[in-house]
Amino acid sequence: MNNFVLHTPTRILFGQGQIAHLAAEIPAGSRVLVTFGGGSVKNNGVMAQVYHALEGFDVQAFGGIEPNPSFETLMQAVEVVKREKITFLLAVGGGSVLDGTKFIAAAAFYPQDPWHILQTGGTDIQQALPIGSVLTLPATGSESNRSAVITRRATQDKQAFRSHHVFPRFAVLDPVYTYSLPPRQIANGVVDAFVHTIEQYLTYPVEACVQDRFAEGLLLTLIGEGPKALAEPENYDVRANVMWSATLALNGLIGAGVPQDWATHMLGHEITALHGLDHAQTLAIILPSLMNIQRATKRKKLLQYAARVWGINDGNDEERIDAAIAATRNFFEQMGVPTRFRDYQLDGSSIPQLLKKLEEKGLTALGEHQDISPEVSRQIYLDAR
Amino acid sequence: MNNFVLHTPTRILFGQGQIAHLAAEIPAGSRVLVTFGGGSVKNNGVMAQVYHALEGFDVQAFGGIEPNPSFETLMQAVEVVKREKITFLLAVGGGSVLDGTKFIAAAAFYPQDPWHILQTGGTDIQQALPIGSVLTLPATGSESNRSAVITRRATQDKQAFRSHHVFPRFAVLDPVYTYSLPPRQIANGVVDAFVHTIEQYLTYPVEACVQDRFAEGLLLTLIGEGPKALAEPENYDVRANVMWSATLALNGLIGAGVPQDWATHMLGHEITALHGLDHAQTLAIILPSLMNIQRATKRKKLLQYAARVWGINDGNDEERIDAAIAATRNFFEQMGVPTRFRDYQLDGSSIPQLLKKLEEKGLTALGEHQDISPEVSRQIYLDAR
Repeated sequence: MNNFVLHTPTRILFGQGQIAHLAAEIPAGSRVLVTFGGGSVKNNGVMAQVYHALEGFDVQAFGGIEPNPSFETLMQAVEVVKREKITFLLAVGGGSVLDGTKFIAAAAFYPQDPWHILQTGGTDIQQALPIGSVLTLPATGSESNRSAVITRRATQDKQAFRSHHVFPRFAVLDPVYTYSLPPRQIANGVVDAFVHTIEQYLTYPVEACVQDRFAEGLLLTLIGEGPKALAEPENYDVRANVMWSATLALNGLIGAGVPQDWATHMLGHEITALHGLDHAQTLAIILPSLMNIQRATKRKKLLQYAARVWGINDGNDEERIDAAIAATRNFFEQMGVPTRFRDYQLDGSSIPQLLKKLEEKGLTALGEHQDISPEVSRQIYLDAR
Repeated sequence: MNNFVLHTPTRILFGQGQIAHLAAEIPAGSRVLVTFGGGSVKNNGVMAQVYHALEGFDVQAFGGIEPNPSFETLMQAVEVVKREKITFLLAVGGGSVLDGTKFIAAAAFYPQDPWHILQTGGTDIQQALPIGSVLTLPATGSESNRSAVITRRATQDKQAFRSHHVFPRFAVLDPVYTYSLPPRQIANGVVDAFVHTIEQYLTYPVEACVQDRFAEGLLLTLIGEGPKALAEPENYDVRANVMWSATLALNGLIGAGVPQDWATHMLGHEITALHGLDHAQTLAIILPSLMNIQRATKRKKLLQYAARVWGINDGNDEERIDAAIAATRNFFEQMGVPTRFRDYQLDGSSIPQLLKKLEEKGLTALGEHQDISPEVSRQIYLDAR
């Protein structure tokens, strides 16, 4: 097991009706900015519950944070924060609203052009507004971690930052809030949480028994509950299991003390930036292909994954790995998320552009062994057509 | 899944050499009281490393915190805290030192007789000294939770309290520090962590897929690594897996959103109080018997436990439950912890006294269904002879 530091300070308020305890989590006298995305949280009644729970606070709202939140939009919120002397940010929505709110929190105190936060990965953030969240879309785990991904619309650049200053203080997770989500968003969320888990699991063994078992537990849960979440949108326990899995997939716990990959995310990000595909769609395209191309260096964990997650024990090594990759692909397809470029009317002709973007960012040695060179990335993209 | 609030704020510094980062976790200028138990941390060199890491701080030490830490001893430490104007407590040891240090932290500010903390379960604690820890014995999970159990020697009373004010700020977990532990302490730690997990798992199903998988993951890890920890005391990864399992078994994670039992602990506590057996020994005596007596109400989870943890899939329900109980007993015995009163030269003649103590404390409706009446407790004790 590798050494690690693990810090998971976000208080989780999980379950139906937990919003009633929201006010107790926010310092008295706070000037609260509620951040949100589109109108869905207004239409499904969540925003009304938030306002009700915030009675007694001075509350402003900032809507319109888009999927893959943009620097340009968020800078408008930073102006509101400064103008209205906001002291607490409450993110109501999914991972994009959370990520965007983290950026607002840090940018509000940042002494230079806040784009610099993304160029430096957040390393020089000294201060941020406190953040809380009411999660409505289980997927990214952003509600209890210190990371965010922001896109600059002008240049299509997608950049990540992290800082312990932007850890949310609390997160309200009410599975009922997910009932009204479109199936596509639930499907994307399940795929996203699944791939987050894989990125921290499917590398090489370091005798980290607990981390492996926990990761496998999340994968088994998502495989079992994901399709049910589509078929029975108002099954509380199913939605609860998906929601809790998504949080635990990326709060630092399963990745503590083990190698991590994240190449699927890096290769996928460029597809979103260039073609506008949903984040999870890009992961579903890349992961099966990456498993295939990287089967030699991931052999031991691929075989463990095959056996423990899919119950695949028959055949030789290559056959079991093939079967595990096929099972992964089938699961994504079963969730309604296609797994080939061609399924999205892309023929692969943009692969040189995708590779160029990776190279421009210096992403030329990806994966847990830093052995995913531009040539290997090319093979992965090609294999995903 | 049941509603829950989960808060795990303790920073975990895990791995060989992490003590080097100790000083950065303690506020500059702190007056530190290092608390410890017997002399083992002096003999094995841990205390020397602690002092080295604390260079630059004003450091005092308080030793002699005993297993099942006593109110009487801890009150001496409270006097030291007040006299020396201590501002930070650093617990160096296992669960007893941690538990005792939590009590010192709360008692230092408590406006009345600190025994009242235990009589009220900690509910009226308003303030406590900050605590950090260097863990040397993996077992209780106390290094990252807000609970403690204290014994009053004068009356043999064993009482628990909890308060978010006594959450340790950080815990240094270095598996190397466990190499020199006597086998009995490692065995006890593995059994303790195992039973902590069982108390939060082996109840009745509430469709909490993740919590079940995580609990099973801890049990499987302890079953796999526990015997190796005895056979290969300096196998780093084995000790790391045991240490991390013990922390995660009782930091709130696997118990969030599920029913909990804790009757094994309650019945066991009285055996320690009356006969002085090790805490884990009492758990090993009670658990197999409790599983047997409570097999009707725990049926579904017992069958799940049999299948997923022990791979027992053959036979009818009763046969599979019998096999799972036998496997549990065998595991404890394999760890060198006997599972019957008679193995400790006890013939059961003290059972009326044990029951009387339970009744005096009002522990007359234990377990996840509050259906463990004094009569059921009697059956469990009798079955354990």
